[in-house]
Amino acid sequence: MTRQVLHEQIVQKQSFLCVGLDADIHKLPKHLLTERDPILTFNRAIIDATSDLAVAYKPNLAFYESLGIRGWESLQHSLEYIPSECFTIADAKRGDIGNTADMYARTFFKTYPFDSVTVNPYMGKDSVTPFLAYEGKWAIVLGLTSNPGAADFQYFEGKDEKLYTHAIKKMASWGTPDNLMFVVGATRADEIASIRALVPEHFFLVPGVGAQGGSLSEVYKHGANGEVGLLVNASRSILYASSGKDFAEAARAEALRMQQEMAALMAG
Amino acid sequence: MTRQVLHEQIVQKQSFLCVGLDADIHKLPKHLLTERDPILTFNRAIIDATSDLAVAYKPNLAFYESLGIRGWESLQHSLEYIPSECFTIADAKRGDIGNTADMYARTFFKTYPFDSVTVNPYMGKDSVTPFLAYEGKWAIVLGLTSNPGAADFQYFEGKDEKLYTHAIKKMASWGTPDNLMFVVGATRADEIASIRALVPEHFFLVPGVGAQGGSLSEVYKHGANGEVGLLVNASRSILYASSGKDFAEAARAEALRMQQEMAALMAG
Repeated sequence: MTRQVLHEQIVQKQSFLCVGLDADIHKLPKHLLTERDPILTFNRAIIDATSDLAVAYKPNLAFYESLGIRGWESLQHSLEYIPSECFTIADAKRGDIGNTADMYARTFFKTYPFDSVTVNPYMGKDSVTPFLAYEGKWAIVLGLTSNPGAADFQYFEGKDEKLYTHAIKKMASWGTPDNLMFVVGATRADEIASIRALVPEHFFLVPGVGAQGGSLSEVYKHGANGEVGLLVNASRSILYASSGKDFAEAARAEALRMQQEMAALMAG
Repeated sequence: MTRQVLHEQIVQKQSFLCVGLDADIHKLPKHLLTERDPILTFNRAIIDATSDLAVAYKPNLAFYESLGIRGWESLQHSLEYIPSECFTIADAKRGDIGNTADMYARTFFKTYPFDSVTVNPYMGKDSVTPFLAYEGKWAIVLGLTSNPGAADFQYFEGKDEKLYTHAIKKMASWGTPDNLMFVVGATRADEIASIRALVPEHFFLVPGVGAQGGSLSEVYKHGANGEVGLLVNASRSILYASSGKDFAEAARAEALRMQQEMAALMAG
């Protein structure tokens, strides 16, 4: 999907919401567990309930891999069910030497038809560039993450700057705003503005709003650019808004609440 | 597998060879392509030809994932075929926030019975510690990698030291020599000695000998400790020693050459 098409969808839906499909078999509503593929049934209901409100879906690969082959089957069928106008993100955090990165790019762009994949850039340029070689596909590299461990290495103090700002500038030179996005955690709202100044045109994928406590209005205020340039992810706050038979209605209500807040911010 | 059992195997086989099972469907001997599962047939032949010479096997997950579900089937059956005395490594380079890292640990230690998994530590402590919570299982974290891109971030200059030495010291405090190993690339033989000084007791998984040009004797000289403390990986140089019907014999010859050099180094 091109940047222009993604932007058009954001304007049309008045939303920059990404729904994280982190379906945990241990957290699903109990009445689904008798289904042949409970995760697929759950994901379909979530997608049906939110696809007019969300512009992107992000399956977290760990939740599927942990179930072995039947998890990959659930993933494939869930991916097929996502409406084609929605942007799809394989949240896989892959990253390895060049010939292995080639294989991972093939996995998520050819074997599975994702629009994008999250990439861990710690191994450097040859671990990232293979993901940039596919027309209309995207690498979403870690810029600054929202977890406690971000402090361990991403904040490592160099002579002039922290590692993460050095890394973001370097990575921006490897791709373009048309094939490279950055993960920028919402729990660090004060840093979003400085990252936006470094890379004014790139999309940010923003986790950490919702269950992790980040503020949507702060993210928009500091992170939006002229084309919005944000995909804000929510996973648990939407998926598990209710653990009962009304889980899909509850998910829709939470997604609608976020979309309405987004529309108000965009009208700003 | 405990460190003691791994060490006993190294002494018994007079070898610290790890064979990387990076079976690329496009590089397999052509006569195998008519098999029902060419990769499994290939892996079985390689394992049969080398299991008295190697102490560990390391499937590179990318090569299996890129084939979708049939790749995961090949992986599972290959894993089942590896003799139980050999140490197994899921070369997956996983790394994500805590609750996701939990899922990846479950994938490789419960859904699949690997002894260890390679972990990308860029997201910090909560992305690594879930892999340390399983008795007899190991996290193998990136210390210093052997690819050109290692220079981009791992060599980032801090006020007193480069990122990778800071990272190695910090990670050593998260685990013990009984559940944590480091990936240390063989193409940087001069740095192996300084890393060994930082973490005298931990095992190193060393890629880069063979196709990538690292020297086995240099690695041993600078990296061995009193318990050897090394697993030296070779993938392409063994797997593709011949592309003909004699591929398994050629793989054995190359593995034997390496094992004999290892035995000579261990005899000192």
